[in-house]
Amino acid sequence: MKVLFVGTGLIGGSFSLAMQKHGLLTEAGGYSRKMVNLDRSRELGIIHEKFSNLKEGLDWADWIILSIPVDVIDTMLPQILDGIREEQVVIDFGSTKGKICQSVRAHEARARFIAAHPIAGTEYSGPDAAFADLFTNKLMIVCEEEQTNPVALRQFEEVCKKLEMQLEYMEAESHDRHLAYISHLSHITSYALSNAVLQKEKDGHVILELAGSGFASTVRLAKSSPEMWGPIFMENKKMVLEALNTFLDHSQKFKNMLENDDYQGLLEFLESGRAIKRVIK
Amino acid sequence: MKVLFVGTGLIGGSFSLAMQKHGLLTEAGGYSRKMVNLDRSRELGIIHEKFSNLKEGLDWADWIILSIPVDVIDTMLPQILDGIREEQVVIDFGSTKGKICQSVRAHEARARFIAAHPIAGTEYSGPDAAFADLFTNKLMIVCEEEQTNPVALRQFEEVCKKLEMQLEYMEAESHDRHLAYISHLSHITSYALSNAVLQKEKDGHVILELAGSGFASTVRLAKSSPEMWGPIFMENKKMVLEALNTFLDHSQKFKNMLENDDYQGLLEFLESGRAIKRVIK
Repeated sequence: MKVLFVGTGLIGGSFSLAMQKHGLLTEAGGYSRKMVNLDRSRELGIIHEKFSNLKEGLDWADWIILSIPVDVIDTMLPQILDGIREEQVVIDFGSTKGKICQSVRAHEARARFIAAHPIAGTEYSGPDAAFADLFTNKLMIVCEEEQTNPVALRQFEEVCKKLEMQLEYMEAESHDRHLAYISHLSHITSYALSNAVLQKEKDGHVILELAGSGFASTVRLAKSSPEMWGPIFMENKKMVLEALNTFLDHSQKFKNMLENDDYQGLLEFLESGRAIKRVIK
Repeated sequence: MKVLFVGTGLIGGSFSLAMQKHGLLTEAGGYSRKMVNLDRSRELGIIHEKFSNLKEGLDWADWIILSIPVDVIDTMLPQILDGIREEQVVIDFGSTKGKICQSVRAHEARARFIAAHPIAGTEYSGPDAAFADLFTNKLMIVCEEEQTNPVALRQFEEVCKKLEMQLEYMEAESHDRHLAYISHLSHITSYALSNAVLQKEKDGHVILELAGSGFASTVRLAKSSPEMWGPIFMENKKMVLEALNTFLDHSQKFKNMLENDDYQGLLEFLESGRAIKRVIK
């Protein structure tokens, strides 16, 4: 099977390396608007063929995997489906699913498309961040699976299982709401924390020295790519705002209790937050 | 040298194990209000002697190391210095330094006291969380070092160096301000994030499945001990509120830009937050 990776960074690149490691593709092709990324991807063995012309890449491929910013997926996906052949499959790995599913809901080739989201990643980006084991024991969420051709879906599920991934099926809206709280919000608090600390601490040396205090872990996600994350926040705006408001309410509650020397309330706030221990070891 | 550890949890326990590993103490004693912790500490080899009577422990020891909640240090430290002998040294490892230093500023035995803060820790607590290498390559901050007897200070510095720690000297107020931004604020955002997500996601199973998305890292500090952290926030109230307000301003700014579809502003916010990459690799 020949797979065209549209976007060969952390996610697409790692998926190519993983499929290669498990002998699940015969040739990996790459398309990117950034030629330098394609060259680097070939050096790293992520792809074998590079395409500067998307149409040529699409004609060449059996599978097409989109790992690019979600706003670009919105635009590109219907165009790709316009020219798709019967046996081809298009899969997107975007971190929001509602708007992407919406963009092709009425498309005559909708059945050739799989709306997927692998719950895996690091704070790094680009081909150099890719590695073959990123997805091992991680979750692959598939949305609106009933809209996809069953044979194509089965084939994708088999690949995921061979990569030792678990599969889960979710409505697109439900996916976007859960991810707003559990993933998107974490990124916002990290970016805001980083901005707050950098505003105060002009001397990076001090931050570095004191980062062992837990800051490094809490701010880690702020290193993520704005090019990927800006569109995620915009696309999932409604639910991200709901999650952010919930978070700000709790932060404000903490602030009020501290201002009012409400020590008992403060302790209860910390205890209820600490309950996350029961979920995440 | 005989060292009495008042508090034998993560920090005190690890320091005892580290000193033992490097042959820097002959006997470790332990005092705690929680007898079960003392028994467990002896089982784990953190201490050899347990004292149910503080006075007996103090009489027995050459060094006394306080690793207990900062509000308890405030109360206990002056009382310990009241009965101290000329050759004894008391060291506290509290995470705030201003109020603790203030509590003994005019004490006649002030020179027998070292106000220290090791920048190391994990989200776990208690004797079972202690390990000998916690402090390796970490920073030990000493405040108001000019108030401490130079011989006692030198002896403590030698111990820190043998544990492969770096030493840094800071004014207590400066310490508390830096830590408010770089450490205390991170803990607040983690606790608030945890509360927000637990409010929305009643099903821990969903959180666990999606936690690979970065949440686990961002929320890690919420597992920290409320008994230790409540008093830190209270003692460092003024600077913690300053840091929290700075953070809330940035969060609010993000929210406004998202509400107003200010994509350019959003990207700039993410880019400026991402600058933390230059400091923390």
